[in-house]
Amino acid sequence: MPADGPKRVFINEVSTRDGFQMELRWIETDEKVRFIDDLSLSGVAKIEVSSFVSWKAVPALADASDVFARIQRRAGVIYVALVPNLRGAERAAAAEVDEMNLVMSSSETHNRANMRMTCAQSLGNFRDITTGFASKTITLNGTIATAFGCPFEGAQDPARVLGFAERYLEIGMAGITLADTTGMANPRQVEDLVAAILRRFPELPLTLHFHNTRGMGLANVVAAYDAGARSFDGSLGGIGGCPFAPGATGNVCTEDFVHMFECMGVDTGTQLDALVALSRRLPAMVGHDVSGQVAKAGAVWNLHPSPLLSPAGCDTAAHP
Amino acid sequence: MPADGPKRVFINEVSTRDGFQMELRWIETDEKVRFIDDLSLSGVAKIEVSSFVSWKAVPALADASDVFARIQRRAGVIYVALVPNLRGAERAAAAEVDEMNLVMSSSETHNRANMRMTCAQSLGNFRDITTGFASKTITLNGTIATAFGCPFEGAQDPARVLGFAERYLEIGMAGITLADTTGMANPRQVEDLVAAILRRFPELPLTLHFHNTRGMGLANVVAAYDAGARSFDGSLGGIGGCPFAPGATGNVCTEDFVHMFECMGVDTGTQLDALVALSRRLPAMVGHDVSGQVAKAGAVWNLHPSPLLSPAGCDTAAHP
Repeated sequence: MPADGPKRVFINEVSTRDGFQMELRWIETDEKVRFIDDLSLSGVAKIEVSSFVSWKAVPALADASDVFARIQRRAGVIYVALVPNLRGAERAAAAEVDEMNLVMSSSETHNRANMRMTCAQSLGNFRDITTGFASKTITLNGTIATAFGCPFEGAQDPARVLGFAERYLEIGMAGITLADTTGMANPRQVEDLVAAILRRFPELPLTLHFHNTRGMGLANVVAAYDAGARSFDGSLGGIGGCPFAPGATGNVCTEDFVHMFECMGVDTGTQLDALVALSRRLPAMVGHDVSGQVAKAGAVWNLHPSPLLSPAGCDTAAHP
Repeated sequence: MPADGPKRVFINEVSTRDGFQMELRWIETDEKVRFIDDLSLSGVAKIEVSSFVSWKAVPALADASDVFARIQRRAGVIYVALVPNLRGAERAAAAEVDEMNLVMSSSETHNRANMRMTCAQSLGNFRDITTGFASKTITLNGTIATAFGCPFEGAQDPARVLGFAERYLEIGMAGITLADTTGMANPRQVEDLVAAILRRFPELPLTLHFHNTRGMGLANVVAAYDAGARSFDGSLGGIGGCPFAPGATGNVCTEDFVHMFECMGVDTGTQLDALVALSRRLPAMVGHDVSGQVAKAGAVWNLHPSPLLSPAGCDTAAHP
């Protein structure tokens, strides 16, 4: 059952960061800027523009500063950068980002593998960053990656995740994202963890970041919504993903879950047509097909002409 | 929130009917029989083996009688055939099916396009079939296709769908399937319609048949489960689909939603490994990739070795 509260969700579009970082084909800075500028007109609440990681680690996003310098910022849209460390925070501040997204995994193993730090070291870094950079113009969001499961450790203890959320808030994060980094969450688990974190921190600006690695992405979005979540990361076309599941789909597809919310009578603030048009540009940009469904099948309200009126008739395959 | 009742669902595997009927490549009868025989060992409750439609309409299933004659029937598994008309029912009875699945669309337009009959004509036919063929050894199930939406007419009036359910039961159907033929249902609508039909017919053997055309398939499965549904059609690899959405995925993928239910602590009666192994045989049988995710990504409980122990190390892309 839906939680109380307005039927309104907020979309943080991450394709240009979480999607592009995985792509082997270099996407020209101009092309990224054009894409982000068009995204700014689509009604999304936030855009995770790029990542200030080392260009050696993520060459696809080596132009993060350039991209931020050249996009046209639109009032009402929050422009976010992923920041892995103090050096990244300095670059992000120089680029005048609106929000820094700091990432640590709840799984010690995953954090050491992904960030080359222990969780304690990450938290120490985060304290330096929030102390140094939280300002009137820059807010800090903290992501807890592998919050629902780690590909090395398995399911994560909700108490550990809640503990990290508490630490994040103590050291000055303004919002928290729970990320299902490798698509291991299931709807029951999502319902339980979202309800638990919102019970403990009722005013928390909470965002959910799901992957569709095992097909559960949209089911998890609904479960989170029903438990009270109102802010969701998504990636147009479902681009992005996880290096541990070759062939599997990546992030939940923005236009697919926006379409679902609209069908459910939940306002997303976005224009679906604009999102679908952007998604349809992606295969040419990234050089491969993408997994989004609504861009292929069309919205449910786009009806087809009756085949009874067509001289070609129709099949009689008895489709139930 | 989950409805009361045991955490147990029943799977009706439809790939060899709803999946194969869409395939252009002829699949040898022997290959179908081997596939169904292995399916019989996987723990599914029912198998929709084939369809007794005209071979001109669906050449891919022209061998329905042969397939039924050659499969090894396993006690506890119900072998179903789709039956479009009286002639099909005669052939199905001769083939000694356990269950006939009769199909009519709630949408008048879709029924005329798909079955070349009005809904009233379909109901008349069904009465003849239930009168002639319901027996100690043959049960009749009635499917209401396009129950959530029609690609020509749009959303369907729940009162009309409930009315057809009532007629189905009056004329002797033992169970009813609500089918989202072209993937137009959304979770809220599913919750409402399933709750409504189970309020009106609390003892009804109700099955839900979803398509993933717009990515909402598994979200709809959860919504139906939470509203009290306990029986689900699925298609291994998500094969099958709808001719009105080229490039879109088809039926909900059996192994993906079985995996989801197992993650949620809901018993499906099946062995996921057996279903995944069957799904992995499909691309070679049908000649193209299939859309299932778990067969690619693996179950969430199949953990990966820690990269910290590997001399190759791992990437540092800072994946949230």
